[in-house]
Amino acid sequence: MTERTSLALVLAAGEGTRMRSGLPKVMHKVAGLPMLGHVLKAAESAGIGRFAVVVGSGADAVKSFVAKRVPDAGLYEQLERRGTAHAVLAAREALAEGADDVLVLYGDTPLVTAGTLSRLRAEIAKGAAVVVLGFRPADPTGYGRLIVENGRLVAIREEKDASPEERRIGLCNAGLMAFAGAGLVELLGRIGNDNAKGEFYLTDAVGIAHAEGLSVVAIETDADEVAGVNTRAELAAVEAIWQQRARRAAMLSGVTLVAPETVFFSHDTAIEPDVTIEPNVVFGTGVSVEGGAVIHAFSHLEGARIGSGAAVGPFARLRPGADVGPEAKVGNFVEVKNASIGAGAKVSHLTYIGDASVGAEANIGAGTVTCNYDGYDKAKTIIGEGAFIGSNSSLVAPVTIGDGAYVGSGSVVTEDVAPDALALGRARQVEKPGWAARFRAAKAASPRKRV
Amino acid sequence: MTERTSLALVLAAGEGTRMRSGLPKVMHKVAGLPMLGHVLKAAESAGIGRFAVVVGSGADAVKSFVAKRVPDAGLYEQLERRGTAHAVLAAREALAEGADDVLVLYGDTPLVTAGTLSRLRAEIAKGAAVVVLGFRPADPTGYGRLIVENGRLVAIREEKDASPEERRIGLCNAGLMAFAGAGLVELLGRIGNDNAKGEFYLTDAVGIAHAEGLSVVAIETDADEVAGVNTRAELAAVEAIWQQRARRAAMLSGVTLVAPETVFFSHDTAIEPDVTIEPNVVFGTGVSVEGGAVIHAFSHLEGARIGSGAAVGPFARLRPGADVGPEAKVGNFVEVKNASIGAGAKVSHLTYIGDASVGAEANIGAGTVTCNYDGYDKAKTIIGEGAFIGSNSSLVAPVTIGDGAYVGSGSVVTEDVAPDALALGRARQVEKPGWAARFRAAKAASPRKRV
Amino acid sequence: MTERTSLALVLAAGEGTRMRSGLPKVMHKVAGLPMLGHVLKAAESAGIGRFAVVVGSGADAVKSFVAKRVPDAGLYEQLERRGTAHAVLAAREALAEGADDVLVLYGDTPLVTAGTLSRLRAEIAKGAAVVVLGFRPADPTGYGRLIVENGRLVAIREEKDASPEERRIGLCNAGLMAFAGAGLVELLGRIGNDNAKGEFYLTDAVGIAHAEGLSVVAIETDADEVAGVNTRAELAAVEAIWQQRARRAAMLSGVTLVAPETVFFSHDTAIEPDVTIEPNVVFGTGVSVEGGAVIHAFSHLEGARIGSGAAVGPFARLRPGADVGPEAKVGNFVEVKNASIGAGAKVSHLTYIGDASVGAEANIGAGTVTCNYDGYDKAKTIIGEGAFIGSNSSLVAPVTIGDGAYVGSGSVVTEDVAPDALALGRARQVEKPGWAARFRAAKAASPRKRV
Repeated sequence: MTERTSLALVLAAGEGTRMRSGLPKVMHKVAGLPMLGHVLKAAESAGIGRFAVVVGSGADAVKSFVAKRVPDAGLYEQLERRGTAHAVLAAREALAEGADDVLVLYGDTPLVTAGTLSRLRAEIAKGAAVVVLGFRPADPTGYGRLIVENGRLVAIREEKDASPEERRIGLCNAGLMAFAGAGLVELLGRIGNDNAKGEFYLTDAVGIAHAEGLSVVAIETDADEVAGVNTRAELAAVEAIWQQRARRAAMLSGVTLVAPETVFFSHDTAIEPDVTIEPNVVFGTGVSVEGGAVIHAFSHLEGARIGSGAAVGPFARLRPGADVGPEAKVGNFVEVKNASIGAGAKVSHLTYIGDASVGAEANIGAGTVTCNYDGYDKAKTIIGEGAFIGSNSSLVAPVTIGDGAYVGSGSVVTEDVAPDALALGRARQVEKPGWAARFRAAKAASPRKRV
Repeated sequence: MTERTSLALVLAAGEGTRMRSGLPKVMHKVAGLPMLGHVLKAAESAGIGRFAVVVGSGADAVKSFVAKRVPDAGLYEQLERRGTAHAVLAAREALAEGADDVLVLYGDTPLVTAGTLSRLRAEIAKGAAVVVLGFRPADPTGYGRLIVENGRLVAIREEKDASPEERRIGLCNAGLMAFAGAGLVELLGRIGNDNAKGEFYLTDAVGIAHAEGLSVVAIETDADEVAGVNTRAELAAVEAIWQQRARRAAMLSGVTLVAPETVFFSHDTAIEPDVTIEPNVVFGTGVSVEGGAVIHAFSHLEGARIGSGAAVGPFARLRPGADVGPEAKVGNFVEVKNASIGAGAKVSHLTYIGDASVGAEANIGAGTVTCNYDGYDKAKTIIGEGAFIGSNSSLVAPVTIGDGAYVGSGSVVTEDVAPDALALGRARQVEKPGWAARFRAAKAASPRKRV
Repeated sequence: MTERTSLALVLAAGEGTRMRSGLPKVMHKVAGLPMLGHVLKAAESAGIGRFAVVVGSGADAVKSFVAKRVPDAGLYEQLERRGTAHAVLAAREALAEGADDVLVLYGDTPLVTAGTLSRLRAEIAKGAAVVVLGFRPADPTGYGRLIVENGRLVAIREEKDASPEERRIGLCNAGLMAFAGAGLVELLGRIGNDNAKGEFYLTDAVGIAHAEGLSVVAIETDADEVAGVNTRAELAAVEAIWQQRARRAAMLSGVTLVAPETVFFSHDTAIEPDVTIEPNVVFGTGVSVEGGAVIHAFSHLEGARIGSGAAVGPFARLRPGADVGPEAKVGNFVEVKNASIGAGAKVSHLTYIGDASVGAEANIGAGTVTCNYDGYDKAKTIIGEGAFIGSNSSLVAPVTIGDGAYVGSGSVVTEDVAPDALALGRARQVEKPGWAARFRAAKAASPRKRV
């Protein structure tokens, strides 16, 4: 089927007023990717090479997202809202270029899988003119029923027009359809708007094609896959289904999730087998984890690479550009940003490593801060292999700590430290005997202050 | 209906031995508010103006809670446990003052809504003498069935007294009742205790009123709303229902909850539309969040105000008195207490800001601590607009950092810093060449110590 | 029954290829304990005194776990995989030593309870030769059905051999069995391998014993208890059931769990009544919490003891050896390891206390670090009663801060501090007027740098 040409026509013009949001509906995210992105990704995975996206007027956020994600995609504005067939014809130009099959998808139905899209395409390849995707909701009330006779879909019957017998049909219209490219513009042109709302319904293509003796079929998928989003509650429900899928896939591939329901993946999270993930871990976009690593509880990772056998968390935050080497450790209350942590290095607690490279086997004491920002510019800290940074040190970038060097606890390091040297930047300890006793006596004699 | 007078009589004397707690049962919290508080709040929202609370003997915690929450409420001690009608009559004095309607509620049934209480009141206003709230449990076994004939409630039949036919009735007694105020004391006086336990049951009022030709009706609500609490497991179940309601309401109002099941609201949390809340956020009492703000994962907020467009977390803790300005940022491992963070200011990491004000557009480096406590008194730190506090600085309060001033990394600041000045309080860096190499050689020659 | 001797024969040789793991299947953990450990623990609790564990060839991890957990257990290698009866006979030597009853258990069925094992044993004590544990799965398809006639189990019928009527039987074989010890080796020896796979099935003992007129019975348990683990998804499902059990037991014993589904216990967590646990708390192994303590949200505890009335978290990490005294406080972004925190002491924020003892009523300021490691050795910090450690201090171990002493903020303390003294180790503050204004002017004139 690879030689067949395919166009995915994605309807993404819905205003989504029930989302109560300034953001266009299809730009709301599932697993860190706008819903529209999920649909485009599934279509790409199903071997579809051309894209037409129908957007609402002035939907700049949608347009720029599509332009970035699929630069070749056609963008078409739907100026009036006159039904799904009318919306499809907004992309008439793309249809006119021709394709063996055309899939009509929805930007707010993000869970559709490449496998299902491939099945739709396969039916067209086998000779169908129109294919409708059906599903069986728990309660079919309100959905259009798919009337199938002798393996052919003869009509989609709306609830209000259905006979009692037809209402007992459980197979319902999910909205997604596929068409043979040849003759499609003509078929759409024959859809009228002689109905209560005066709109042009794409589903009418079923009856028209069937009446003309063309092959119209239905295929079935599970209800989860075609769940649509109209409110943020439905958005959360779709996110939950996506996460369940991802967690299950991870576990079956050999990843241990102690409490899968508390782990949140992103659309592009990549975890190798024999990684262990404790409860309450959130993956932002762009994270990869190599085998044997352990992500402890309460960790938040984004744009980070974790090497084999590394340990992260609990309470670790890895931000974009964090590159944790094999067998390295990033411990509690540690933030790493745009920095590499060398193999076997340890950043165990209460530390900020930003815009830095930490050499292999280095040890960074608790409370260390790389001072990478002066209010205007960012600068880099380089810590050599096997270096030891004492606790509560401040490394003022740009600065280099040589291989094997020591920095004494509580030091402020503003100049480079030579390899194997000791750097200190702290005052000598002085003691005032009995001061605390006198202080307490004075305090005890006066009322406590609060602010 | 606003001119009608109403009394809510709340039975709150249950000992709750199955809670296995020193705390009176009705004082256990749901969404940060004692269960009794939820009942009082619903009654207030239903327009009820007078309250009588029947408490157990010596329930000081309950009494002081009621006195603080509803100062005008009458408090009545139930000295003996002789049934619900007996408990109601403990508040005979309140009943004698008269009211158009009297609602009998339970302090351990905290999910009842103002809407349902209004419906109970409306039935009295329409002429009923007694109204019983019914619900349909998944399994009615053990519940009293509501026997309704021709729209009238004729009896509440206990399980053991019910005929096989009556046992098939799904509508059960939830316990909550409303009464016309006129004649109520007399009605209650006619309830006897000729039963196995020798107790006075409020439900007997149904049969007595019906026999006298008074109008007795049942209204129905869903089972969740009348869930009672006898164990901490049931307390957790009620909390879960409350949270589900709150999450759904937030989403439908335009708040994005990426993983609603991981967000915990308090009874008084106020979130505006187009706020995004990532997974794992806990709201203590007294938090408000303005539109456009983002609360990142693993954040804990209590008594805090978040301005529009602000970013909080991940891993942020806002304590009472934290006031985060518009477009400000409170980042990871940051605690803010009794402090304002000005518009656009950044407190990005590993910082404690307590008893302080941070000026607009100020930048607070990682590891900064406002030293607000000397063991006796609290003192205040004032950081000016556009000030830059270098990392790992200690600001010893009371102290003022002027507008636009800089504090060098690692400084201990004990005296005020003038606007636009630089303050440093740190030792000069010294280096001991080769020290680390010699140190390692010496260490390598001796056994490692562990403590 | 205590005088009766019992042998638990645990089959633990499964390779678990569907786990996709280098770790033997029975070593995967539930609630922090390998699955095999749960089975051994349940057997011990049921009064079983002898153990034989059948392991796969070369399963060193399993062997060493068993040797450590139950030193007296016999370990037997199953060299070939020829069915369950063959596996049991790998431990022929243990069987030959004799026991009143022999229970055959599975290392990958970790939720079995001591109560159920006691019931199996009781049936043997009452005269049964063979007892089979049954359960009623939601869908029995694929399971062997237990054919019970007149209270006797006459056969276990595999799905493929079952009549339509037999397929309607809901009671299925869970795999776990008990045998009278006398004659068991002979009974097993009569099991043949005349079947499709040519394997020796332990379930055939049922038919053989029944045919000989011996008493064979079935007892029933709920499906959760006999859930087996073949994939990491099933491992997570078993973990979830275990956690639900533990949460419910904790709540019914008087522990408040605000959001039980977010609290993760370990197999040995011990919590007293009237402890409150907020959402999102993870217990590693070896934690005990005394009454009245509060564990706030986002806390991670392992190997720690929490005293009565203590407050931990939010965002606290207690590591092994943390001993938090009564009424003490460990606050946000605080790590405690191998250290005692005295009664009423406060470690409120952003602190690392490692290898230390903190005296009663001491106050540790934010940003304090005990510098317990020099890259080679660990050393101890001792902080006296009522001492006050200023913020951002570094205490370089070994070091002792005397009772009632003060350490000024930002100090590096390398030498002991006398009781009631004040120690300072910080530079004097200097100010450069106008520096920041000049700095900004210079920066504004040049392009910003990013790294």
